[in-house]
Amino acid sequence: MATCGWARAVRGLLLDVSGVLYDSGADGGVPIAGSAEAVRRIKASGLKLQLCTNETQATRENFVRKLRALGFDISVAEVTAPAPAACRLLKERGLRPHLLVHDDLVPEFAEVDKTNPNCVVLGDAAENFTYANLNEAFRLLIGMEKPVLISLGKGRYYKETDGLKLDVGAYMKALEYACDVQAEVVGKPAKKFLESALAELGVPAEQAIMIGDDIVSDVGGAQQCGMRALQVRTGKYRPSDENHPEVKPDAYVNNLAEAVDIILQHL
Amino acid sequence: MATCGWARAVRGLLLDVSGVLYDSGADGGVPIAGSAEAVRRIKASGLKLQLCTNETQATRENFVRKLRALGFDISVAEVTAPAPAACRLLKERGLRPHLLVHDDLVPEFAEVDKTNPNCVVLGDAAENFTYANLNEAFRLLIGMEKPVLISLGKGRYYKETDGLKLDVGAYMKALEYACDVQAEVVGKPAKKFLESALAELGVPAEQAIMIGDDIVSDVGGAQQCGMRALQVRTGKYRPSDENHPEVKPDAYVNNLAEAVDIILQHL
Repeated sequence: MATCGWARAVRGLLLDVSGVLYDSGADGGVPIAGSAEAVRRIKASGLKLQLCTNETQATRENFVRKLRALGFDISVAEVTAPAPAACRLLKERGLRPHLLVHDDLVPEFAEVDKTNPNCVVLGDAAENFTYANLNEAFRLLIGMEKPVLISLGKGRYYKETDGLKLDVGAYMKALEYACDVQAEVVGKPAKKFLESALAELGVPAEQAIMIGDDIVSDVGGAQQCGMRALQVRTGKYRPSDENHPEVKPDAYVNNLAEAVDIILQHL
Repeated sequence: MATCGWARAVRGLLLDVSGVLYDSGADGGVPIAGSAEAVRRIKASGLKLQLCTNETQATRENFVRKLRALGFDISVAEVTAPAPAACRLLKERGLRPHLLVHDDLVPEFAEVDKTNPNCVVLGDAAENFTYANLNEAFRLLIGMEKPVLISLGKGRYYKETDGLKLDVGAYMKALEYACDVQAEVVGKPAKKFLESALAELGVPAEQAIMIGDDIVSDVGGAQQCGMRALQVRTGKYRPSDENHPEVKPDAYVNNLAEAVDIILQHL
């Protein structure tokens, strides 16, 4: 058995979802081979497990329903996602959002006052990223004395079954530039968000490993919180990630199943 | 008569167009009061005149037709615009563009080989800034060994008769971020572009004044080329421009007519 120093003294795993458990797509997506079995093995081993996603195209309830249909044994409480975290932030600060998000995410904000908006919340709006909707969000921001832009993640792009798509981060940059503001990111790699996922996982950072396909959001974000982090060679992984100028994972693994094999061997 | 040091020893004027001559809009736009008369007075005075625009929603021919319909005595040779400059650059470097531009600009690229694209040219595509079109441009770029993104200007936003609109610069930032590249800007405030406008004006930088409504693209760009530059309080001008951290115009004027009054008094 290979000796993998990074795999020692682990009590909990934070898993990214899209690109690790499944490849998303308009058709509902397809599971990545071995991932459903890997989730079952994690649970059977007694390791703690929490999914930490930047997914903002569905409520957590619908997201979990989709994962279960794909064969993943996951409950809503096992998912940390940006929208509920954003709702807490909005309430704490008395902010009333204009939403530029996916239609299916809107119910997450049902309890939030959206009259007379004093901030813009940007998610992965997909088909709602229209010229008209972007101009509307821009005009609201530029009309505020101090524009407040809250972005649910800052990913560059992601992979769907029919190809790569621009992610919310690209649109965030467009609005940041137009309004000369800096967005507040709720989602990976924001430290506060990853710390809330870690709190829900219930183990200290030094006993947790993050496993993700995004070198910056998953790996870089987790390492900044003191966790170890693996990059899988599935999802949006590209060979050029292995030369990233700033972020170096604790290890590369071919996929989640391989990571789980190694971790379980070291328990 | 007020003594205005900035108005001395002038032999030529570079004028921005939208927000200085007229306010643009889907309805064709409306002239700014006094501007058509001001253009006539410049020409009658013997001062040289060149329009320098980042307009990329029409060919120069159609753009000039629109200006003439609004009462401006302007010919095609008096307009410096990004698309013809971009065509020269594409030919020089053997680049074959994928175009994400306004439908009405496409004829400017009629002579350019667009098969098997090895770069993306981005203009103010307006309604063509769809989710699908942005994803298509992104996928082409991210698939190139060394992505080349050419942006026709980098304005943040502009004013139309029905409100502010995101300009090409915002979409440029989105693609720059997603692909981790830096766009090459053809248009104001790029020095090379302003120098080509100055060459077409036919006077040295120190004898030319730029008049524009954009503190960065017009004023900052012209000053970097050694020209004097005025900001008009029309078009997209906002009072906060007067506190810009980096750019300070040689003077503010209420509108083009006032600028021309003062300049002609100093001839």
